[in-house]
Amino acid sequence: MSTQEASATDSSLKRPREEEDNGAAMETEKSTAAGTDNGGGVTKEEPACISSIIPGWFSETSPMWPGEAHSLKVEKILFQGKSDYQDVIVFQSATYGKVLVLDGVIQLTERDECAYQEMITHLPLCSISNPKKVLVIGGGDGGVLREVARHSSVEQIDMCEIDKMVVDVSKQYFPNVAIGFEDPRVNLVIGDGVAFLKNAAEGTYDAVIVDSSDPIGPAKELFEKPFFESVNRALRPGGVVCTQAESLWLHMDIIEDIVSNCREIFKGSVNYAWTSVPTYPSGVIGFMLCSKEGPEVDFKKPVSPIDADESSIKSNGPLRFYNFEIHSAAFCLPAFAKKVIDSKS
Amino acid sequence: MSTQEASATDSSLKRPREEEDNGAAMETEKSTAAGTDNGGGVTKEEPACISSIIPGWFSETSPMWPGEAHSLKVEKILFQGKSDYQDVIVFQSATYGKVLVLDGVIQLTERDECAYQEMITHLPLCSISNPKKVLVIGGGDGGVLREVARHSSVEQIDMCEIDKMVVDVSKQYFPNVAIGFEDPRVNLVIGDGVAFLKNAAEGTYDAVIVDSSDPIGPAKELFEKPFFESVNRALRPGGVVCTQAESLWLHMDIIEDIVSNCREIFKGSVNYAWTSVPTYPSGVIGFMLCSKEGPEVDFKKPVSPIDADESSIKSNGPLRFYNFEIHSAAFCLPAFAKKVIDSKS
Repeated sequence: MSTQEASATDSSLKRPREEEDNGAAMETEKSTAAGTDNGGGVTKEEPACISSIIPGWFSETSPMWPGEAHSLKVEKILFQGKSDYQDVIVFQSATYGKVLVLDGVIQLTERDECAYQEMITHLPLCSISNPKKVLVIGGGDGGVLREVARHSSVEQIDMCEIDKMVVDVSKQYFPNVAIGFEDPRVNLVIGDGVAFLKNAAEGTYDAVIVDSSDPIGPAKELFEKPFFESVNRALRPGGVVCTQAESLWLHMDIIEDIVSNCREIFKGSVNYAWTSVPTYPSGVIGFMLCSKEGPEVDFKKPVSPIDADESSIKSNGPLRFYNFEIHSAAFCLPAFAKKVIDSKS
Repeated sequence: MSTQEASATDSSLKRPREEEDNGAAMETEKSTAAGTDNGGGVTKEEPACISSIIPGWFSETSPMWPGEAHSLKVEKILFQGKSDYQDVIVFQSATYGKVLVLDGVIQLTERDECAYQEMITHLPLCSISNPKKVLVIGGGDGGVLREVARHSSVEQIDMCEIDKMVVDVSKQYFPNVAIGFEDPRVNLVIGDGVAFLKNAAEGTYDAVIVDSSDPIGPAKELFEKPFFESVNRALRPGGVVCTQAESLWLHMDIIEDIVSNCREIFKGSVNYAWTSVPTYPSGVIGFMLCSKEGPEVDFKKPVSPIDADESSIKSNGPLRFYNFEIHSAAFCLPAFAKKVIDSKS
């Protein structure tokens, strides 16, 4: 969930934090607004979410998870800037490596990014045979690209990321993540993912991966019917989509709506999966995995192994999290969630 | 992992926080020491871990997970005391219900305790047919007892908990957890679990559940060979043990040692499982599941369903987390952990 998908020209797409008066992110905005913009959107003043809650620590609070905060000790702030879409911070943490923060919310840490990037990519791509054309919406850090690149059947990787600053910052500070951009199959478009999908030719993609921000506020429409209809249209029959779909522990109400919408749009299969990511709220993140009507897809039984040949590992490093066992296990849900999700079918 | 297992008479069993000079727990100790002890070990001053890090919030820091903290907003402190073994705090949180804290570390919240209690209990008990005699070491909040009580085959539930204050506090503030104590099959002993096991008759138990604190410092010996030998001795052939076994993300080095020790002692099967618990560090907790030589136990394939009859649900509420799917999924490990754990076999 590395990038905000809002179109800059659509005034209905506000970040929730622009409307609410609490949380560290709000303080960040005040801080960077007060800071000196020395061109390129880079401000010098220390963001309030770092200095004001636990001195010397970054604390993540949000109206999306009220009453709790996860904090990381900061060794050094490496970058802070304000793009046209969001506040961007990179810091060196004491124990989680470098950390990317957008609008006060942790997007990735070097220590645990493998879980999110590998799962959001390989859950869909390993569920179909020989994926060739893949679209990534968001994912400006490049980590999903790195993972897509492990699939030798893939011929074309389109990415639509709205915020160029995220791409640039990732290339500078997270070379092991941004390595994904170096793959010659990648075609990067800086722009609005919603518009990109509307204009995509029908039946183009074998897989669409939506590496988005949270579905409240600006990215809300990425979890609603019109967007899912665009995705469905852009997929080939039996093509698959995987979208970031929040936490079972925190947002069962949102997940319920997403599942309902997906069941209406995607006439193949519709599944919810989840995985552990320590630095995301509640320690888990979920994914909606759906297929378009056509050749049947059983997401719980992966069919395409990932190349582990020497050249792939040399470029992208070994897989750290994903394997076929954990793929299937990701679809096993706790009783409280299974009850709700099954009731929607 | 609700209770500290240290013997009060063994001076080698110190809490790590008695030896280290950092972390919120240390501040708690100072605070409660400075507070007024008005009998029964109850102090009145607000513990420092609540007031000093984020004002009005409880922050959990520990040398066991340096550089990060999880914080919960406090509505009201309901209890604070100092037993012979540890500092005990109960507070009403803004969004996680009531919370039990021992020596500065969250033991349970009403919102997510189901995951830990159900998994540590049903992973072992559902893996064998008709468990009859069960021993619980620690677990003074009663949550594991509540879950054991769902198994109608069980005839005898022995519990050895070192700290009576934990039992009393749980009965007062967590009635839906402490309800486990009301089962007539329960035989509660307040005492040292290590000594209890040494004195237990050989071959007594079908299952032993070790609901312990962290295996660094005082509870260290609960994860070492002599303790596992006592457990193995107390089990009947083919009997099973489940012990709290930390986080894959944080303590792979500890887990590696535990697995090695268990493989030396338990000649049946030796497995690692894990589950999501949002308020535990890194959002996950693991379990070692081992069986004594004898009838074969395949932990990954549960055999004993849990009673879901009306009287059981009326007493203990419905299962909120556990089901057979999530049981099997718990044994699927991420690549980085599988590599290390498999190398020990």
